[in-house]
Amino acid sequence: MDEKWHEIDTFAKKAIKEAGRKIVDSFDEVLKIQTKSNVNDLVTNMDKQIEKYFVEQIDKHYPDHRVLGEEGFGDQIQDMLGTVWIIDPIDGTMNFVHQQRNFAVSIGVFHEGEGKLGYIYDVVADELYHAQKGNGAFLNDEKLSPLKDVPIEEAIFSINATWLVPNRKVNHEQFIPLVHKVRGTRSYGSAAIELAYIAAGRLDGYISMRLSPWDFAGGKVLIEEVGGQLTDLNGEELSMVNNSHIFAGNPAVHQKVLKDYLNN
Amino acid sequence: MDEKWHEIDTFAKKAIKEAGRKIVDSFDEVLKIQTKSNVNDLVTNMDKQIEKYFVEQIDKHYPDHRVLGEEGFGDQIQDMLGTVWIIDPIDGTMNFVHQQRNFAVSIGVFHEGEGKLGYIYDVVADELYHAQKGNGAFLNDEKLSPLKDVPIEEAIFSINATWLVPNRKVNHEQFIPLVHKVRGTRSYGSAAIELAYIAAGRLDGYISMRLSPWDFAGGKVLIEEVGGQLTDLNGEELSMVNNSHIFAGNPAVHQKVLKDYLNN
Repeated sequence: MDEKWHEIDTFAKKAIKEAGRKIVDSFDEVLKIQTKSNVNDLVTNMDKQIEKYFVEQIDKHYPDHRVLGEEGFGDQIQDMLGTVWIIDPIDGTMNFVHQQRNFAVSIGVFHEGEGKLGYIYDVVADELYHAQKGNGAFLNDEKLSPLKDVPIEEAIFSINATWLVPNRKVNHEQFIPLVHKVRGTRSYGSAAIELAYIAAGRLDGYISMRLSPWDFAGGKVLIEEVGGQLTDLNGEELSMVNNSHIFAGNPAVHQKVLKDYLNN
Repeated sequence: MDEKWHEIDTFAKKAIKEAGRKIVDSFDEVLKIQTKSNVNDLVTNMDKQIEKYFVEQIDKHYPDHRVLGEEGFGDQIQDMLGTVWIIDPIDGTMNFVHQQRNFAVSIGVFHEGEGKLGYIYDVVADELYHAQKGNGAFLNDEKLSPLKDVPIEEAIFSINATWLVPNRKVNHEQFIPLVHKVRGTRSYGSAAIELAYIAAGRLDGYISMRLSPWDFAGGKVLIEEVGGQLTDLNGEELSMVNNSHIFAGNPAVHQKVLKDYLNN
């Protein structure tokens, strides 16, 4: 990792912490909630304000970098040429609105298609997960250990109820033997937090459908830095410009589930 | 609430905070994990140590009170005569072992069958939910508001994947329309934390099967103090000496789901 990336890393962490402060300060304000495509997709003024903040900061300090953001204040991104910041200002907006916790800022910085920097900031828990490619992943100041193999029957898996009942995106029946086999299941309602938990070894697997690059770009850098896997449900590499079904996991669990539990 | 119960409340809070400190101190120690009835029911030395601590403290200060605890260091309880403490030293043991977070100490104090005091302490988040019957419920120093009506389509429901796939305890198909109807679902893996979230309005409904009194005794006092409901799946009052399927919720959500979504 050369000096340039260290400098960008320092800039990114400072901006993320500042974004966290803005979010916490907003809790007392009235949130003006708008509906986007459906009632499950709550967007608040705060999502937009935070994304604008990142776009302005990046434009000012790194005018040749491009930004792909959930709220659309960045650039139109159709390829991964040059340096691209992929940003979800508030991942887990439903939690943000209903719980004022269990949401995260998520950022991945890619250069010529390669993940260089990854950040997931669980704002209320004040847990900043961060990684520079090749330099390890950290939770705040603590270095995260490489993921150890976990047997499938001892795995904790995160999968939302949406995917375990009949739905339009995926055959839910393929997941029944998996739910029966693993030690336990969870669902936190924020892909970023669930990916950070995979990186920290708090979860061993996570499956979710129809996610966008900003939901998993930061998580991808973090998870790969501790030896984990993040792919689609066929084990193929994820696109950073299109939506995907995703499957993240501990390496042993990921391999076993791909081979024995998913229909592919 | 008379002076006696204020004094017991002060004693209980002090003991719970001390228990929390003992648990946090234990994280660096090696956890000697034993299996109880099955691999999903992890019990650590810490569960036992914390329950013993509570039993000793209660015996010393209130020798005429009885204790019903998960680990069995208390009394054999077959009725609710007199004053009974119902204690789960660590609710969410799997989270405790795998995540070192998302677990709670849960205590309900009942007198002649009536819930008088309720506590749920999310140790790592340092969130102590507490209630004295008739005096309101609190999260740390902040008074919790009475629960406002929430339409079912805006509700966040907690239900574990276990109950959404074929299983031996309950007909999973009855939950499919509910999962389709609500705004979102979650699962945190600790009944105590899920009940505390109901009391705080962070969740609007929670369903779980085969729980023991120590899983919900503290939550019952808290939830009722903010106007919520905690019953079995038929809307009947829960026994404090037997296991039950439970359904907790915001009052409007609870009524609607009982009437239109559960098979009874």
